[in-house]
Amino acid sequence: MPSMSAIDTFDYVVFGATGDLTMRKLLPALYHRFRDKQIPETARVIGAARSVLSDDEYRDRADKALRRFVKPDALDEDLIHRFLGMIFYASVNGAEADSTWENMTRLFDDSVADKIRVFYLATSPELYGRICGNLAAKGLVTESARVVLEKPIGHDLDSARAINDEVGQYFVETKIFRIDHYLGKETVQNLIALRFANPVFARLWNADAIDHVQITAAETVGVEGRGDYYDHSGALRDMIQNHLLQVLCLVAMEPPGSLDADNLRNEKLKVLRALKPINAADVQHVAVRGQYGRGMVGKEIVPAYLEELGEGRQSDTETFIAIKAEVHSWRWGNVPFYLRSGKRLPNKVSEVVVQFRETPWSIFNTKLEPNRLIIRLQPEEGIQLSIMSKDPGPDGMVLRPANIDISFEKAFATRYPDAYERLLMDTVRGDPVLFMRRDEVEAAWTWVEPILKAWKEHPGTPHHYTAGSWGPDAARTLIQETGHVWHEDMK
Amino acid sequence: MPSMSAIDTFDYVVFGATGDLTMRKLLPALYHRFRDKQIPETARVIGAARSVLSDDEYRDRADKALRRFVKPDALDEDLIHRFLGMIFYASVNGAEADSTWENMTRLFDDSVADKIRVFYLATSPELYGRICGNLAAKGLVTESARVVLEKPIGHDLDSARAINDEVGQYFVETKIFRIDHYLGKETVQNLIALRFANPVFARLWNADAIDHVQITAAETVGVEGRGDYYDHSGALRDMIQNHLLQVLCLVAMEPPGSLDADNLRNEKLKVLRALKPINAADVQHVAVRGQYGRGMVGKEIVPAYLEELGEGRQSDTETFIAIKAEVHSWRWGNVPFYLRSGKRLPNKVSEVVVQFRETPWSIFNTKLEPNRLIIRLQPEEGIQLSIMSKDPGPDGMVLRPANIDISFEKAFATRYPDAYERLLMDTVRGDPVLFMRRDEVEAAWTWVEPILKAWKEHPGTPHHYTAGSWGPDAARTLIQETGHVWHEDMK
Repeated sequence: MPSMSAIDTFDYVVFGATGDLTMRKLLPALYHRFRDKQIPETARVIGAARSVLSDDEYRDRADKALRRFVKPDALDEDLIHRFLGMIFYASVNGAEADSTWENMTRLFDDSVADKIRVFYLATSPELYGRICGNLAAKGLVTESARVVLEKPIGHDLDSARAINDEVGQYFVETKIFRIDHYLGKETVQNLIALRFANPVFARLWNADAIDHVQITAAETVGVEGRGDYYDHSGALRDMIQNHLLQVLCLVAMEPPGSLDADNLRNEKLKVLRALKPINAADVQHVAVRGQYGRGMVGKEIVPAYLEELGEGRQSDTETFIAIKAEVHSWRWGNVPFYLRSGKRLPNKVSEVVVQFRETPWSIFNTKLEPNRLIIRLQPEEGIQLSIMSKDPGPDGMVLRPANIDISFEKAFATRYPDAYERLLMDTVRGDPVLFMRRDEVEAAWTWVEPILKAWKEHPGTPHHYTAGSWGPDAARTLIQETGHVWHEDMK
Repeated sequence: MPSMSAIDTFDYVVFGATGDLTMRKLLPALYHRFRDKQIPETARVIGAARSVLSDDEYRDRADKALRRFVKPDALDEDLIHRFLGMIFYASVNGAEADSTWENMTRLFDDSVADKIRVFYLATSPELYGRICGNLAAKGLVTESARVVLEKPIGHDLDSARAINDEVGQYFVETKIFRIDHYLGKETVQNLIALRFANPVFARLWNADAIDHVQITAAETVGVEGRGDYYDHSGALRDMIQNHLLQVLCLVAMEPPGSLDADNLRNEKLKVLRALKPINAADVQHVAVRGQYGRGMVGKEIVPAYLEELGEGRQSDTETFIAIKAEVHSWRWGNVPFYLRSGKRLPNKVSEVVVQFRETPWSIFNTKLEPNRLIIRLQPEEGIQLSIMSKDPGPDGMVLRPANIDISFEKAFATRYPDAYERLLMDTVRGDPVLFMRRDEVEAAWTWVEPILKAWKEHPGTPHHYTAGSWGPDAARTLIQETGHVWHEDMK
């Protein structure tokens, strides 16, 4: 059973309360924390959206969401009943300063001023500034208030700055929680433990020992219903700028002096600022974009991206990206970091592959595979160390690769909390260590922006790849230039 | 299925053919190699002993031994029948130059001279010289002949030299195979693979990264029927001088330039010669001897060593020993190697524990356990790396130890051959890489001899320990002086 401490009571206000994220992730996460007795029954969850719904109508939706997205063995009628009783609903035009806000403010009429209140904005980012302005105008931004911003924070550096400026008018930086759910994943946090609590790994964590790093987030799904959103985003904005760069930061950062939020984030920021800038002329050499055509994922025939967008639509949006990054630092000189993400790939897998250098000399007849540490973020969180081992048998010294494997969930024989559970509780506790500071978000945009610009200026067609393949051939060429291969092609 | 290559045909002559080792280990090992089609049906196994037996009578004994010591799923009536047909028996007084030798020589009357013949001496070591002399006198030592010597090679340096001198009169060093079955264990050989095929371990294998090493061979059995033999030997001669020092060599040696037998053994020899000499005055500080009293092993009440020896017997023989060794080299400066072996300990386990140094700085609230690599030699061969991992849960960064575990037998899903299978085939192939060269044996005796002498000169009583405990308290004190604890006391 994981250790757990009860937290202070709170009001959790979710804008975008009828949306997919709330139903699929936020309500189930809060339910699990309640079930584990971490949330006191005096806490409230307040859904806010434009739809006109009564508390009971919203509770009905919440009830259905729990039954759909919480695993059956965690469902308990009495707990659900009590949890739903903590849920309220306010029909509010969040972005407008209109009278609908009364539906929200009256919920706080009797509230004590120092009760923690969290405003979680699960809406379109263009609305963040206006919602925060309205919260402030209605007197809801108390000392104990904080705001949670879902990604994407903007669609480029300027728009990110604009959002940060606007929100910053109403909330000080320490009260702004920019969420990246990758940072809530157990294995991502475990990276910090692996690196800094284990001298065996710490000693190997540098260019002397490491040949290169691959960070992959592969999805099997296409864009399906989200085509309109996705077509304005693409894989670079949707995955690289936030999730994969955050993971890269944790892999590459120097040891922080403490786990204090600013110490940790200073180290991450240093990595982002040490990324070799990509100028316009570099883009074609270090970044590959792709877009899937019709193909097969598993046993299912799936349509092309353009077909999913809709009849007759054209688009340059990338559904796949591979980038070669370099961290300009003493620790990482000449160690490429390959980042890759795509939709309609053969497997749903997010992982970090740390490939170690080869032996300087071999006394064996067998070809030696380099050691690899694979940190799986999903689907099954765990780590795997691949080593060369003697082939058991009465013959000579024949070697073959073997994997030392740890599935955390199996090893600890405990349920693994979803990333949102951890992160939502951190927003209540007011602990920002696993959230992105403004300067991090902007540094990440600064790094990706030349790629965005180059692609905009030279639209061309993204490389085609067949749905169900590992992306365009150009991605393979990208990594082969330095003599490497992607993990799925490794022997 | 392990890779396997057929070997040339041979005659395998075992002196001491009615003894326990032959029945329990040698015949089952040869059967397994025959079963795996590694041994051609033209090969012969020739038992030699003083008992007067016909071929068929000896085959009956062999048959019983196979059914007792080979696992049922490997027994096959047709195979057993064919294997027994390859077995012959010669009633010979090996140490005497008498007419019984005709029973042996006539078996070779029709033999082609270049057929490989192996003489395996599973007898008392005092007889080695005389048996070899008789083999030579009877013209049996051809170009293609080799001799295998079981441990112990003598009971001290002088007697070892005498045996080596005597045997060396009849066999050149390259034809003398001094067997130490520990070297045939898969995990012991895997040490070579782990260290030299895996840069992740190679980079950590030195005093910078390693705090200390423990090498333990613990038995639950007492001396039982072997009291008379054991009382002249003791744990130092029986386990440390050969098995544990050989394992220490493989853990501590520099990378050999190749796996050529002499390259490898040169490196092992360098380690033995780099062991800090123990002078008479040191003995009491670096070596602890113990002898078990009555106690409980598992649920069984077991007698004291002296009771097992027999009514009214007194003895100073150690049934337990712990030694602090140091390897005087650049790689191992200030890294103690603790060796330990004993009878009537709580578990049957042979293992190497490599404990790594602590983190220089911790950013965690949890106390960090040092990383450990545990190389299990028996009962279940495998390796385990203990790391600190994040405690899964939605709370802060709480760490706890986790083990990354690989059981080779499970991992490779194959039967693990017994050490003797590998080693017997090596004697046929003429590959001495896993056998001890004369200079190694003598270097090992040189190192242990001051302890033997000091104990002889100052008999006193060995420390008492209760059967079923981990040895005398003095062993705990020995390791605690440098701030360490034995593996079983580690948290």
